[in-house]
Amino acid sequence: MSGRPSKREDAKRPSTEEKYSTKQERILRAAIGVLAERGFHRTTIHDIAQAAGVADGTIYLYFKNKDQLLIELFEEVMARALRLFRDALREEQEAEGKLRAFLHTHLRLVEHDPEVAQIISVELRQSSIFIKEYKNPLFGEYLKIIGEILQEGIEEGVFRSDLRPSLITRAIFGAMDEISLAWLLSRRDLSLEESAEALCEMILQGVRRCPVSAPSGA
Amino acid sequence: MSGRPSKREDAKRPSTEEKYSTKQERILRAAIGVLAERGFHRTTIHDIAQAAGVADGTIYLYFKNKDQLLIELFEEVMARALRLFRDALREEQEAEGKLRAFLHTHLRLVEHDPEVAQIISVELRQSSIFIKEYKNPLFGEYLKIIGEILQEGIEEGVFRSDLRPSLITRAIFGAMDEISLAWLLSRRDLSLEESAEALCEMILQGVRRCPVSAPSGA
Repeated sequence: MSGRPSKREDAKRPSTEEKYSTKQERILRAAIGVLAERGFHRTTIHDIAQAAGVADGTIYLYFKNKDQLLIELFEEVMARALRLFRDALREEQEAEGKLRAFLHTHLRLVEHDPEVAQIISVELRQSSIFIKEYKNPLFGEYLKIIGEILQEGIEEGVFRSDLRPSLITRAIFGAMDEISLAWLLSRRDLSLEESAEALCEMILQGVRRCPVSAPSGA
Repeated sequence: MSGRPSKREDAKRPSTEEKYSTKQERILRAAIGVLAERGFHRTTIHDIAQAAGVADGTIYLYFKNKDQLLIELFEEVMARALRLFRDALREEQEAEGKLRAFLHTHLRLVEHDPEVAQIISVELRQSSIFIKEYKNPLFGEYLKIIGEILQEGIEEGVFRSDLRPSLITRAIFGAMDEISLAWLLSRRDLSLEESAEALCEMILQGVRRCPVSAPSGA
């Protein structure tokens, strides 16, 4: 449920719930390695069980099937990302700074944990259950954060009043996601964080009221 | 190889090659319907054979497997799209008009043929062979068109000189693709072509030298 083991803040007494959560987390962590290496379709429940050091049947105590395991993995990663996004935004007062912080945080997450990012950007899309049936409330929250920043910027008079936040939110996510995907499928020798700044500039200029608040835009 | 039957310009004598091409096309056309309805993983070669009115074995005369069939379908669709893009660009003299024409053409193609667009945007990503092994030269050509427009705009002095064309090309494709995907997976009651204009405005403003050439940007 909470963050990844190295960053857990709440490692207190090992209650029954804790033990449950620990084994479930162990399986999820093992799944990350196997899925990133073999891909969604070539990974079997048996592979994951072996990597986690548990019996195949144990996996089914926690996850209905491979799609469900992937979805829970996604939910854990997204919950952690959403916390990091909110932390990054809390330090910013204005919409422009918030949008910049959001975009940088997204690409930093991808660059710092490419195995997990690959599962989210590449493997997850191979689960038709995820794509077509799963409602995905956490992705909704992710989009909502961008939408709220855009709305705030419009109210501050810094972003164009004719922006359509829901449309531009999807466009911004799509741009970020494609940049991440291209990087993940490449040799990863360019710095994604450096790209973040160039992308930020283009997106910010695109949403700004111009030229009023961007006299030195070029 | 060439466009869809209703738009074929080259229906001349039915040579052996033509007959070959016709049966192959019949299979591909049948596959579009089946894949869009059932999805990549739930579609079998048998389903496609039935829909095309041929024996299962006939499919294997033309396509090695389901992934290969999907890739050939993609190549046919992309080859047609690339011709349409080039036609649309030929009428424009300047980079800004070209970029606008390109974005509108992309979203118009999706809106006018959602079945095919769904296969490209949703089903194709479920083929790990397509995502990870296929070199995809036609997608490379698609990106090259955007990259050349950006370069042209920089040379005209209309687009920012600090743009990184290869990065911004991916960002633009990602934005368009995500807008299309969101529309395809929705009830499709909004007009995608109307969205195209709002998206164009944001992208053009984002890449323009500002405020020099965009005094009335807001």
